[in-house]
Amino acid sequence: MTTPPFFFGVDVGGTNIKIGLVDDEGRTLAYHKIATEESQGPASAIRRVAAELHTMLADIGHTISDVATIGLAMPGMIDIVNGRTMEPHNLPHWFHFPIRQALEEETGATVILANDANAAAFGEYWLGSGREFRSMVLLTLGTGVGGGIIVNDTLVEGDHSFGSECGHIIIDFNDDARQIPTGQRGHLEAYASGTAIVKRTQEALEAGEKSSLMARMNKGEKLTPLMVAEEAERGDELSLFIVMETARYLGVGVVSLMHTIDPGAVVLGGAVNFGGADSPLGTMFIERVREEVKRRAFPVPAKKTAIRFTSLGTDAGYLGACGLARQAYLRDQQAPVTS
Amino acid sequence: MTTPPFFFGVDVGGTNIKIGLVDDEGRTLAYHKIATEESQGPASAIRRVAAELHTMLADIGHTISDVATIGLAMPGMIDIVNGRTMEPHNLPHWFHFPIRQALEEETGATVILANDANAAAFGEYWLGSGREFRSMVLLTLGTGVGGGIIVNDTLVEGDHSFGSECGHIIIDFNDDARQIPTGQRGHLEAYASGTAIVKRTQEALEAGEKSSLMARMNKGEKLTPLMVAEEAERGDELSLFIVMETARYLGVGVVSLMHTIDPGAVVLGGAVNFGGADSPLGTMFIERVREEVKRRAFPVPAKKTAIRFTSLGTDAGYLGACGLARQAYLRDQQAPVTS
Repeated sequence: MTTPPFFFGVDVGGTNIKIGLVDDEGRTLAYHKIATEESQGPASAIRRVAAELHTMLADIGHTISDVATIGLAMPGMIDIVNGRTMEPHNLPHWFHFPIRQALEEETGATVILANDANAAAFGEYWLGSGREFRSMVLLTLGTGVGGGIIVNDTLVEGDHSFGSECGHIIIDFNDDARQIPTGQRGHLEAYASGTAIVKRTQEALEAGEKSSLMARMNKGEKLTPLMVAEEAERGDELSLFIVMETARYLGVGVVSLMHTIDPGAVVLGGAVNFGGADSPLGTMFIERVREEVKRRAFPVPAKKTAIRFTSLGTDAGYLGACGLARQAYLRDQQAPVTS
Repeated sequence: MTTPPFFFGVDVGGTNIKIGLVDDEGRTLAYHKIATEESQGPASAIRRVAAELHTMLADIGHTISDVATIGLAMPGMIDIVNGRTMEPHNLPHWFHFPIRQALEEETGATVILANDANAAAFGEYWLGSGREFRSMVLLTLGTGVGGGIIVNDTLVEGDHSFGSECGHIIIDFNDDARQIPTGQRGHLEAYASGTAIVKRTQEALEAGEKSSLMARMNKGEKLTPLMVAEEAERGDELSLFIVMETARYLGVGVVSLMHTIDPGAVVLGGAVNFGGADSPLGTMFIERVREEVKRRAFPVPAKKTAIRFTSLGTDAGYLGACGLARQAYLRDQQAPVTS
């Protein structure tokens, strides 16, 4: 049996919205997933989220008065100060919407906003792979490279909401460095993202490298990071090279994070995780990241910093949103009363 | 007239020890500089520091009971948890000494330890070029490249005391990247330190580049970063190229800091500052850093992040030590009492 205060976490994605209710220790009391229905716009979605919250509470015999704070995780850049969305590319009908106020009005509860990658990082920090450390960095590998940095319990959001953009560490200053879509050169994301994996593989194939990928592409399959991972697992040399090279690039970025943040753990997650800790390929991949770190970092952090995969999977976002809501609530409780 | 609590800051260097007494607003009430007398060892130095503290207090009609906390800044890595020196290369007789306990025993006051670059960063954050921001990064250019990171009022010391080592951000992952003395490749320090400036200049001269530096070196002068700066100011093309190239490398490191920490300001200091804000060369240098940032960073932080020189000079260390002492004192005062 658990008692209030409870915390809701809402993780908005392009397809689904995940909603979880947790207690003070992060135990999930209820969890629902609803469709985003992006084209219906944010006001409609927020109304459906609020209805869902009330249903979830009623199901376990509680009301919104038992909820201390709600954490709302959103993709892309958000205007945290004003509680508004900006221009999330996967939510084209949601631009510049006062989403915090909307959810507060629908629920009567205090809402705190966070970027979804930052929320996922906080989830792993509170309940997942970073839970035994004071500081942690998450790197998420997907279409791009995202991240989240927690220093001594505080999520690094930055003075202009550009903190924790770990995919945009520069790993190569040279004029021939790879480009991100904006044309800027040398960013980690230009090397280690899913997009970069596909690009690097295509370049190698065009240069005449032999690979079992060709047979699949000739059958009409589209080249994806998953296909590269699958062929690497089957022993395709080029695919394995691409995976290990990705690990090498990531390791370079990890060293810059170790020599600035010096976290207890660097945690790797996202869809492009090569099977993660349970797979031989994932194990080789993370071992290659560690090897690159040993080559470049000071011996003490190289030895002591844990480098591991995430453990919460896609639950990290709503759990982290709950965790940030809980932290905001606790800080508010502890703040000195000023008259 | 100012009233206690007061804070002492002690900044230990290889040649001198700077000691300052400040009030709660950072106003310096007294300042002395004594010789380190390195070869006499740390116990002797700490006794002389303590005697100096008592004299300084007596001179202004106060006693040690008006001092809330003492901040002690030390060069190199320090074991903050255990309050001990490690192996500071410019203090060879001071290895593995329980320096915090020694100063506490000599004074009866609480002592907090910090690395000197970190203390300088905190000084600039509290009273100098970073004083209007919530977060700040300092990069110090000297023999090496040092730094300090403050996030939301907290100095980033890291989980293994390797935080804020900004000279060891990787800016080039390639196998032919420049090396630091340990042989590791691609660190910012291998490109932008005073040592690197001399090395890059030597290489250019050996490759046959014409320069007014040669005339001075032929007269027996030793090539130094200051000589490069002087000749750059006199219009020597190679020297100016070296200075601008240093700015370019620094700019790359600054972008990685902006996309992870996203500070309000990045502050540049140290002995190799090309004359700083008051000199035409210093102005060109920092403008080149800003230009590199604009090329590589997201537009919002590129536009909004202040990039400027330090303003406290060599006082930053003791002032920052005072600031860290004050912060430790205030946090201790605010902490909930547990029975």
